[in-house]
Formats: sequence, C-alpha cells, structure tokens
Amino acid sequence: MSTETNNNNTPSSSSEQAHTPEQIITPWDVEAESEMGVDYSKLIVQFGSEEIQEDLLERIEKVTQRPVHHFLKRKVFFSHRDMHKLLDYYEQGKPFYLYTGRGPSSESMHLGHLIPFLFTKYLQDVFNVPLVIQMTDDEKFLWKNLELEEAHRLTYENAKDIIACGFDKEKTFIFSNMEYMGHLYKTVLQIEKAVTTSQVKGVFGFNDSDNIGKFSFPAIQAAPSFYTAFPHIFPENESTKSGSSDSKKKSSSSSKPKKRRDIMCLIPCAIDQDPYFRVTRDVAPKLGFQKPSLIHSKFFPALQGAKTKMSASAENSSIFLTDTPKQIKDKINKHAFSGGGATKEEQEKYGANLSVDVPFKYLEFFLEDDALFEEIREKYSTGKMLTGQVKGILIDILTKMVKEHQERRAKITDEEVKEFLSVRKLNFAWPTKKEVVVQPTCSDNEQK
Amino acid sequence: MSTETNNNNTPSSSSEQAHTPEQIITPWDVEAESEMGVDYSKLIVQFGSEEIQEDLLERIEKVTQRPVHHFLKRKVFFSHRDMHKLLDYYEQGKPFYLYTGRGPSSESMHLGHLIPFLFTKYLQDVFNVPLVIQMTDDEKFLWKNLELEEAHRLTYENAKDIIACGFDKEKTFIFSNMEYMGHLYKTVLQIEKAVTTSQVKGVFGFNDSDNIGKFSFPAIQAAPSFYTAFPHIFPENESTKSGSSDSKKKSSSSSKPKKRRDIMCLIPCAIDQDPYFRVTRDVAPKLGFQKPSLIHSKFFPALQGAKTKMSASAENSSIFLTDTPKQIKDKINKHAFSGGGATKEEQEKYGANLSVDVPFKYLEFFLEDDALFEEIREKYSTGKMLTGQVKGILIDILTKMVKEHQERRAKITDEEVKEFLSVRKLNFAWPTKKEVVVQPTCSDNEQK
Repeated sequence: MSTETNNNNTPSSSSEQAHTPEQIITPWDVEAESEMGVDYSKLIVQFGSEEIQEDLLERIEKVTQRPVHHFLKRKVFFSHRDMHKLLDYYEQGKPFYLYTGRGPSSESMHLGHLIPFLFTKYLQDVFNVPLVIQMTDDEKFLWKNLELEEAHRLTYENAKDIIACGFDKEKTFIFSNMEYMGHLYKTVLQIEKAVTTSQVKGVFGFNDSDNIGKFSFPAIQAAPSFYTAFPHIFPENESTKSGSSDSKKKSSSSSKPKKRRDIMCLIPCAIDQDPYFRVTRDVAPKLGFQKPSLIHSKFFPALQGAKTKMSASAENSSIFLTDTPKQIKDKINKHAFSGGGATKEEQEKYGANLSVDVPFKYLEFFLEDDALFEEIREKYSTGKMLTGQVKGILIDILTKMVKEHQERRAKITDEEVKEFLSVRKLNFAWPTKKEVVVQPTCSDNEQK
Repeated sequence: MSTETNNNNTPSSSSEQAHTPEQIITPWDVEAESEMGVDYSKLIVQFGSEEIQEDLLERIEKVTQRPVHHFLKRKVFFSHRDMHKLLDYYEQGKPFYLYTGRGPSSESMHLGHLIPFLFTKYLQDVFNVPLVIQMTDDEKFLWKNLELEEAHRLTYENAKDIIACGFDKEKTFIFSNMEYMGHLYKTVLQIEKAVTTSQVKGVFGFNDSDNIGKFSFPAIQAAPSFYTAFPHIFPENESTKSGSSDSKKKSSSSSKPKKRRDIMCLIPCAIDQDPYFRVTRDVAPKLGFQKPSLIHSKFFPALQGAKTKMSASAENSSIFLTDTPKQIKDKINKHAFSGGGATKEEQEKYGANLSVDVPFKYLEFFLEDDALFEEIREKYSTGKMLTGQVKGILIDILTKMVKEHQERRAKITDEEVKEFLSVRKLNFAWPTKKEVVVQPTCSDNEQK
C-alpha cells in the first residue's frame, strides 16, 4: 500500500518520528538544535510536504480576490499538502470545509496557541466555508496527569478564547471529544480498522508501555478530516449515498471503498500535527474519502529563544492571553532573548542577529504593517535601532492585542459557548463554480 | 501493582493467553484437545477463578428463596469470581446490577448463544435487579470482514432473540456500542488510561499487525462493569458524588482513586470472556470501583463433538434459533456425535461413553427434569437405551424450545426493540437488607 507515513521518514529507523540528530518534531516534542530554531526546509523534506511558494500565494489571492494573510507573506504558514488540488476543487464549485483543533491542557492559552486560529479565521472569511474545531480533551486526559472532568472543563475555558478570535457562529462548530464521541464513533471505527499498531508506533513513537487509549487516539484526531463525522452539517445526500438498498442485506468485503460524497477538508495546523494527518491521508482512499489538504505553520518561539516552542506550563516562556500589560512588558523586557549587541556600542557597530532575536521574530508574527516591519528589519540588523526600541514596539502591539482579546473574551457568555458547542445545522452555502480564470497547474490536477 | 492478569497464566510465556499444549481458550478461539471437550478444572487453575461448589449453590438458594437454576446444578455454570462477596453485599442490602453481552456477527443465533441469556434471565428474576446487555457491533466490525452498517443492523436482529428470552423491559437496557459510545466514552477513557498495550498483548495475544481498534476494545467491553457507564440508570447521588466543588477547579493526580458509589456488578458469561474481566478487575480499584463478580459457563459443544464450541459460521455444527423442526431432526440424527455403541448389540453390551456423547451433553443443558435426566444417564451409559432413543428425546425438547422461541420472537415488534435499546430510566428498587440469616463464610468476607 502507498503510505505517506512510510515514504517520508528515515526508512532504516524502527521509529519513523520526524527527527534527525539535530531536531525532534512530534506532536508532543519540539526541540531544535540551534538558537535559530527549527530548520523548516529540512522538515519539509523529512515530512514530505511541499513548500509554499509565490505561485500558491498568487493563486490564493486570485481565487479569494483578497490580499493573502500576512502569515502567508511572512512564511509563518510555510508548508502544505494538496493546496493546489483544493483550489482546483474550489474553482470548480466543489465543497470543502475547514478543520482545526486544540488540546485543552491549561486554563490560559498563550500567543502561540492563537496562530492557527487567527489564520483559520482568515480562511473562513475569504473562502466562506464551514469550520469544525476539535477540542481533544480526551487526548489531554490520556497523556497528562489531569482529571477527566478537569480536561473537559478546560474545553469550555479554551473555547472562549477561540470564539474571541471572531469565528462566525453560523458557520462554526466547536466540539469536545468527550461529548461528541457518540457522533464521531462510526468514522473513528473505520479509521481504527484501517490502521495497525505498528503504523502508529512508527509515526508517533509509541511503545508497549503506553496506555491503550493513546494507540487509538490518532483515529480520533483523524476522524474530523472526513465529512461523515458531521452528519448534522453534511447530511448524506440520497442520490450520492453509498450502496443500494440490497447492500444492507448482506455483508460485503470492507476492502472495497464506499462511494462517498465529494467533500474535501482543509486543515490549518502547526507542523507538529502533520503526523496525524499523514496517517489520515494514508487511510482516506481505502475508505473512499478525499485526502485532506493541509497548510502548516511554524512554531511560535518561546521568549527564551527559538530552540523550542512556547509552553503553557512554563510561566516565563510565554505571553498568556490573561497577562496584564505590566506582565507583558516585564516578560518581554526581562525574558525575550535578544540578538542585539551586548552594549549600545556593540549594537550600533554590528547590528542585531535577527535569526535568533525573539522580539523581531514576534514582530514577524504580529506586526502586520509590511513597510514598518521592513524598516525595523533594516534598521535593527544594521544597528540603527536598539533592542529596547524593538521591544518597545513589540510591547505596544502585544499589549493592545491581548487587551482587545480580553475585552472580546469577557463579552462571551457561557450561553454563547454552549451554542458554538451544540450539535446543530450550520448556515452556509456551498461555493459555486468560480468565474475567475486560472491557468491549470501541471502537477496538481489529479482530482477524479 | 497486583494483577489478576499476570498471576494466573504461564509467567514465562510472552503471551499470557490461557493455553497449555492441550487447549487454547481465548475470546476468539476455543479448541480442546480431546473429544471430551475442554478440561474445565484445568481452566479454573489457569484463569485463577474459583470452582462453584455446593456451599455456593446452597447459599444462592437461601438468599433467593428459590431453587437454583439447573445450569447451576448441572455445572453448566461452573466457575466464579467473588460470588460470595456479591451475596454478602446483597444480604446487606447493597445494590448490584447484571451485565452480559453479545457480539452480533451473524443473523442467526444458535443454541449456544442462548446459554448466558437464559441464565441471566434467571438471575434477573430471582435477584430482581437491573440488567445491561452490551451489543459489541464495534468489536465485530473491527475483527470481521463485515461492513459497519451490517454489524449495526445485526445488533437489532440479535436483540430480538435476546428479548425473546423474556427479559423485563422495565429493568433491562440493551445497547449497541456504535450508538451508545457517547455515553460510555468517559468510563472507557478512564480504563484506557489505566491499561497498557503490553497488558492487552499479554492477555489477548494481540500483536503489532493488529489494528489499533482492537487494542482499545478491551476498555469498551470493560466499561459496562462500572456503574458510571449508565448515568441514566445509576445517577450520581450528590451525597456520595466524588470530590467537592473545589476539586473541579484544579487538576489533581489521577493516581488517587475517586470515591465511588457502592454499586457492584455481576457478569454471567461464557468462560472465554473471562480475560476481558481479568483486565477489568485489575483496573477497578485504581479507578475507585468495586471489582465485578463473575459467573462462568462452559461452552455449548458443536454437533460434531465437544472439542470445539458451536460456530455461527458452520451451518451443520449448530442448531440455529431459525431452524425448522425438520432441520433440527436431521441435524441431530445425522451430525450429533454419538458415544453409543457402533451397533445395537455393542450399545447393549458396553453402553454409551457419555463423556463424548453430544446428544447426552445437550440434554445436560436443556432437559430440566432431574429425575428423567438421571434415568437417561443410567440407562444410556449401561446400554439399556439406544442412541436413537436419546436423540429422539433431545429432538422433542429442542424442537419445542426453538418453536416457542420463534413464536415469542415473531411477536416482538421493531418498536419494542427500540424501546429496549432506548437510553432511559429503568424501573427497579434497590434491594433492602435481607432477613435471611446466613452464616458468614470464612474465606469471602473481605468486603470493605
């Protein structure tokens, strides 16, 4: 069988985790060797995804008739799988939906957690499509020293932060796995049956001392990639429904994939989640589904440097969405790793090393103004700006951003959260055939 | 940690499946070495359960104030775990419920499938307690070459046969795992977290080429042993509910078991299901639950002999509940392995070897009249009865039994099946402290 999970990693290794001697990237561990952070070019080769290039950005702008998000321009989202195929679909008026998620392991989300949601919000806006958000409270219970009800409660806390990003309630369904499993289970079962234990050991590095829940969890994170997981949003159309009435009367081989509706899924996520979706893309054709498309972000670096990503458990490594202006100011000033000169004189003489400078990296994520950003890049790297000035700009931006987030969050009632999490129809129209004329790409018109 | 799963099997074997060179007994495989069938005494030692002895039967009669079921007298149910403890509980007026199940892999159930249900019906009658019946359509999908919807459909077909055994709708909840998983999931998660992959490999003999669903399934079969799987039947009582309000605010170590309500579970099942409940009993104290009690039946032998159990897939190995009188007669006459003499003369001279005689074994299960049964035993073994006569008596009994079953089944409407499978309150009263004075037993008064 053709497997994305087998082809894209060290074939000689018994474990197929994406790691080289230099860097380890799994859903649970991100460790770069150098202060410059993860080598993302290398990761693209390791994972077998595609780099996002100019032609894709141009195509997205054409199709959406809107400028692309600065996360795309800045290569915060830097890698993808089958984005051209997804755009082909979209242009042909075929339906797709967005899927992203969050593991609710802590009360306070930090800035890094916002990245996929801010970008997903942009995608929902420009493509005008339904969105499902999986809260993996089951995963956090299975992996962490966390009580079941506590993990479930954190789903609701974190959902408020997610809703505060501005998602359209009419088009967005947030769900807790603990609550929604009854609906998800049939899709999960089909995936479980198609994935072996040695596959998940290879992809995720599990071993026999791990609990049995971890082994089946990849099927649970995979399931929302397939539209059958959401019958209230994507009801089976009788005319395209699989099988005829007599197929119900006898059991037949499960090796022949069912005929499915032609609905694709686009998953914006941090690159460390890609292993889940390599497994998902492997099983998709066996079950008669479209492979989901993916668009991957880089990690938001810890204050201490880009060697690791922000952690919700290390107070001083992260800016939390609950931080006060004073906390933000203190954290940036005291803890943000600087690539600038050790003294004013040295900075003026040599300039800052931007490849390790955390304040500058944060601006790359959150300073939308391209002209100002380029000006800072030029001046800071050549010593015409000091670290303190750059930190000051960053503090202003983050203080405003966090304050506005807190204000929006404070207005969200428990009732509204319940609505987002209620199993219900969404209110959206599938796209129609686009009139934008786009040259077909050579390599990505393989849809059937 | 103390483990029933580790202590009771060959410690030197990497697989802890219950097998000796002579016999293999797992939930998927029953193979005895001799025509006399499985060596159940050996199995009790292998599995570490207890033999049912006279004192237990006497105690059940005293407590229930009813004669024991002939399955107990005949040692069809021959082994148990913690039955004395359960009776202690019952006498103290503490609550318990019954749990049994069925894997719906075929349209037609056979006589062997009825054994646990007939016995469970007796237990429900004499103890007057609620009963839950798990239909493991998920298991059958994961193990067999069976479509998802077909496995689900068979749940409803088989439920009719189960209901036809006469269960009290007011006290009985039948559920399909595919449908009920949403309710079961939190209990499943707790079990999954407490069981490692090496444990289930040891107990069930799974290996890395098995699909990931199989690995988590033991938690799904275990879950109904714990009352929290049925909040609509056993709602948490505020006064005994775990934790105080402030425990919700912070996560705490999951190593400390929660305080649970004092509800026990009794599981009547064929002995091949015991591995699931050894795992269950291992995790119970870690999660703060009572270990379930078990009462185990022997296998109903195939027509061809007691070396194996009846199979739903081998037409001529089994009497099906859908068989016509002619089919029953033909199968018994043509296929039931006889321990009688090869000729009339030999039979009259040497008598029948009852230890391999299938018609006689079937009478042991289904001829309730003790006096007649003993008369046949005496006469057939000494040559005063011929195989044809014994087969004739068996044919009469089975024809009547199957006919009556078919009549009861035909009257069960789809509506009634839906009611049995609907998530609802049951109507029962917990037992009160019994006035029967029973001498405490020495070895089994360890309840706390």
